[in-house]
Amino acid sequence: MSMDITFLGTGSAYPSPNRGASALVLRTEGESWLFDCGEGTQTQFMRSSLKASKITKVFISHLHGDHLFGLPGLLCTISLNLNPHPDQPPPCVDIYGPCGLRRFLRVALELSSSQLLFSYAVHELEPSDEQSPVEGRLSPAMTVSGDTLHPQERAGTTVPLDPHTDCYNLIDDKQFVVKAFKLYHRVPSFGFSVEERERPGRLNTDMLKELGVKPGPLYGRLKNGESVTLDSGRVLTADEVLEPPLKGRKVCVFGDCSSPLGDGFKQACQGADVLVHEATLEDGQQEKAVEHGHSTPSMAAAAALACGAQTLVLHHFSQRYKPETLRRDGDDDVTELKRQAELVLQGSRTEVILAEDFLTLPIALKKNLTQ
Amino acid sequence: MSMDITFLGTGSAYPSPNRGASALVLRTEGESWLFDCGEGTQTQFMRSSLKASKITKVFISHLHGDHLFGLPGLLCTISLNLNPHPDQPPPCVDIYGPCGLRRFLRVALELSSSQLLFSYAVHELEPSDEQSPVEGRLSPAMTVSGDTLHPQERAGTTVPLDPHTDCYNLIDDKQFVVKAFKLYHRVPSFGFSVEERERPGRLNTDMLKELGVKPGPLYGRLKNGESVTLDSGRVLTADEVLEPPLKGRKVCVFGDCSSPLGDGFKQACQGADVLVHEATLEDGQQEKAVEHGHSTPSMAAAAALACGAQTLVLHHFSQRYKPETLRRDGDDDVTELKRQAELVLQGSRTEVILAEDFLTLPIALKKNLTQ
Ligand SMILES: [Zn+2]
Ligand SMILES: [Zn+2]
Ligand SMILES: [Zn+2]
Ligand SMILES: [Zn+2]
Repeated sequence: MSMDITFLGTGSAYPSPNRGASALVLRTEGESWLFDCGEGTQTQFMRSSLKASKITKVFISHLHGDHLFGLPGLLCTISLNLNPHPDQPPPCVDIYGPCGLRRFLRVALELSSSQLLFSYAVHELEPSDEQSPVEGRLSPAMTVSGDTLHPQERAGTTVPLDPHTDCYNLIDDKQFVVKAFKLYHRVPSFGFSVEERERPGRLNTDMLKELGVKPGPLYGRLKNGESVTLDSGRVLTADEVLEPPLKGRKVCVFGDCSSPLGDGFKQACQGADVLVHEATLEDGQQEKAVEHGHSTPSMAAAAALACGAQTLVLHHFSQRYKPETLRRDGDDDVTELKRQAELVLQGSRTEVILAEDFLTLPIALKKNLTQ
Repeated sequence: MSMDITFLGTGSAYPSPNRGASALVLRTEGESWLFDCGEGTQTQFMRSSLKASKITKVFISHLHGDHLFGLPGLLCTISLNLNPHPDQPPPCVDIYGPCGLRRFLRVALELSSSQLLFSYAVHELEPSDEQSPVEGRLSPAMTVSGDTLHPQERAGTTVPLDPHTDCYNLIDDKQFVVKAFKLYHRVPSFGFSVEERERPGRLNTDMLKELGVKPGPLYGRLKNGESVTLDSGRVLTADEVLEPPLKGRKVCVFGDCSSPLGDGFKQACQGADVLVHEATLEDGQQEKAVEHGHSTPSMAAAAALACGAQTLVLHHFSQRYKPETLRRDGDDDVTELKRQAELVLQGSRTEVILAEDFLTLPIALKKNLTQ
């Protein structure tokens, strides 16, 4: 039930000894999901308390090198350090990202003669033309990867935009609904929202004991919402002994952008517990930021406000903003970025956090809906 | 005239916080030549006193990820941090490596929409079938990259093996002769030898002064080896006032291998001042090392002995061998690898050095040939 986010790289453009290139991990129920994988992510994993071998899903927001170039090496190193269970079928790592990702990974793994002890599948999101200037679009020839899979590759899917929601439906299972949405950047970029399903409320066992109902099949029927007739003849409805359901948590991670595109982000991120957004440059440099397809703290705050997010986490800082602990006189002050976002969010309930490499942010279970 | 080698990554298989993935820099005459470029090399540059922007040539020994995956990101970051001189034509970085390197780099740069402020050319070495087991050979389809160059790519060459020398002739200019030679590994791997040209001896100006010859055109003619007639009528030959020429230095860098292949390495590395060789595992694990296409210290020492190298530098250590400064009780002892190589080299004039990340090794000018 515990859920947290760990930032492995909070720098923009390239990895530096102060800030790694983009990568963050969402941990939940023993699985780790990786969002972006800049060069050096595997080394950042080793420096952290997280295990790269727990990764079951990878989400790549866009194909810029500072979000992508660490992926082939990470997969190779996970494989090298794996102790495969010969009885278990090797797990398949699902990788989601823009068209072209499949070809990049296949070419990198094939030319380096890399064999993996697990399989992987790349599911590609079809970008829209409006997501980038013309020069940021990849020609179809660049993204077609042919029919010959890498030996450890399983066929992936191509995920189209759902025109009704303006979102891409990536995952919809018992535990999670995961969607992607469109962003505008120098190249097509995406954001992701991960929403836990509602959890059924707990049975009020104290009340059941008072009524003389012992643990057994009746408990199960009540949990399923059925009514049951007690020995006394009394009909007990589920409502009487079931606490209200727990709303699922929602975590949203934006890729690089100078703005969201369309309404998908509002649909996907409404009421987010945590919204992670880039803030490459300070408000005073908005023109330069937008020119490079990036955001300032105020722009990030506007997105958080539009979604009613509870916590806005800023990351992807220009390497000129050193971590607070390393800052010297005359250096740019990264905490200024926090203040700029807070100014926009004044009066709202949204809290602002500055990410740093290796920061872990727990995401608390929601309270009952009625509380 | 100064020349040195700096190790940026001395670990095998993958980068770790203790040892970076393979990369070393040969500095000479204001230029930096990079040998191999594992993931994280750009960050290792930032941690060192070297400047990545000084790189004019790159040599990739083979296409395993721990020698290659840092290259696209390094080029992008050099470009991002460059202050181009609008008057000067941008320099062209020459990149040498096995067939397939051109396609890897082109696909990585194109799919990430990376534009560079300088141009580059990839010169590919044609491997021989015997350089690896069958499964390590790339199909021709994998290495063909088509006619469409990346916007900053200049047409590169394909370098064939010279059957007379069993070497590849890469560079032959006023200053240097650079050759590659064949190695056996799990995938085709190459070594490189860089040889400085002989330097003409200095003029003995003290003697010329005694003879009353003043600096001027006569000096130039003597330096060119001509005889001159002095005012006194005396004929002065160049031999009388020219010191013997200085032999050039020779630095050889082997790629991953379990053995050299053919005679090229002897031809290229004879009398090397410095020979850099991998020693992935200790002598006691030779079987495992060879199975994975790697060497032990004894095997590296045998290569140094065959070439009469003056200094053997070991690197590319399994990540289980921590740097001496980080070693704790019970850890494998990397200095044992040095002793194993020294045992083989007992009685020879070859010195053994263990590389560590950020070690810089100066390579002294040679003494006069007659000394
Ligand atoms: Zn970025
Ligand atoms: Zn970007
Ligand atoms: Zn290696
Ligand atoms: Zn190798």
